[in-house]
Amino acid sequence: MGRTSDAKEKILSAAHSLIELRGYSALGVAEICKTAGVPKGSFYYFFESKEALALAVIDEQWAVQQSDWTRILNSGAEPLQRLRQLFEETEAEQRAGQQSCGTVSGCMFGNLTLEMSNQTEAVRKHLQEIFDAQVEMVDSVITEALQRGDVTVTDTREAARSVVAQLEGQVLFAKLYNNTSQLSALWTNCLALLGARTAQASADA
Amino acid sequence: MGRTSDAKEKILSAAHSLIELRGYSALGVAEICKTAGVPKGSFYYFFESKEALALAVIDEQWAVQQSDWTRILNSGAEPLQRLRQLFEETEAEQRAGQQSCGTVSGCMFGNLTLEMSNQTEAVRKHLQEIFDAQVEMVDSVITEALQRGDVTVTDTREAARSVVAQLEGQVLFAKLYNNTSQLSALWTNCLALLGARTAQASADA
Repeated sequence: MGRTSDAKEKILSAAHSLIELRGYSALGVAEICKTAGVPKGSFYYFFESKEALALAVIDEQWAVQQSDWTRILNSGAEPLQRLRQLFEETEAEQRAGQQSCGTVSGCMFGNLTLEMSNQTEAVRKHLQEIFDAQVEMVDSVITEALQRGDVTVTDTREAARSVVAQLEGQVLFAKLYNNTSQLSALWTNCLALLGARTAQASADA
Repeated sequence: MGRTSDAKEKILSAAHSLIELRGYSALGVAEICKTAGVPKGSFYYFFESKEALALAVIDEQWAVQQSDWTRILNSGAEPLQRLRQLFEETEAEQRAGQQSCGTVSGCMFGNLTLEMSNQTEAVRKHLQEIFDAQVEMVDSVITEALQRGDVTVTDTREAARSVVAQLEGQVLFAKLYNNTSQLSALWTNCLALLGARTAQASADA
């Protein structure tokens, strides 16, 4: 049992790294197994297909990110400061990735959305659920901020979607230019998108 | 001459459609030639490699889009109205694409950024130049708006990048949910990001 679990974990971990580096379509099962150091036969023992593996990699990545987002967005800090913390940790994570592998890898969910969402409905559905969950978490924080009078938005759900869209767009640029410094605009942009009270905006600018 | 030019155009056009549908990595030269209805031998007469073809497809797409953006962003309309026009035409174009092929295909440059930018430096450089040009064009309009006192941003370049990032992020969601209606948020978000005068924002909301 110990050894088979190991093999599954090795395949998942190799697939995760390879998908971050090169996307999904360019990969073959043989290469994943070679990188993982497991015989190709084990692959199909654990995964029905390459698509099933992609779904497992997405789930694993979301489990980690969801736990990070939950910790940050449910902390005791003031609502807008929690969003600021989310942007700062996102920037730090992208910078750490760049330092370890040379290039900014971006957001795996955004990457796979643009690469795969029109190709497999199972992947599209998974990614929709993840972005729905992200928007829901940000919406809760914006709703709290609105109740305190910190922001002036009228539709908190649409505002949350715009904040997450801004995050995805800026992470796309960070990847394209291999430069994370542009991510520092996220906080100011978030304040603007939420119509944050000027006092708060200037105090924190 | 007529026939060889035809073959090149057919290859470019087939590659364009296939890249929009399925991305770059999943494609093979044989499939492109089959879709184009040209013998595989002609491919290498016109293109050194699949990467060279991708660069040609990107250039051709940018030539069309650059001409649209120039027409819209240099029109005689008031600066902010030109940006509004850009968002409306983007939404209309994505909707037309969805009606013709069933799914929202998104932005080819954004798609290829997330799929390819960490794999080939030539593609990364091309895409950087395109996004630089887009940001530059939007920057010019924001600068005009600033001179008229229509907006309150301090750094027009950063503001332009945020507007383009918001566009890319929202187009990503339109593709993921196969739903262009979310693109209607672009105008309101742009006004917020630019700190547009409230009068303008409410008059146009």
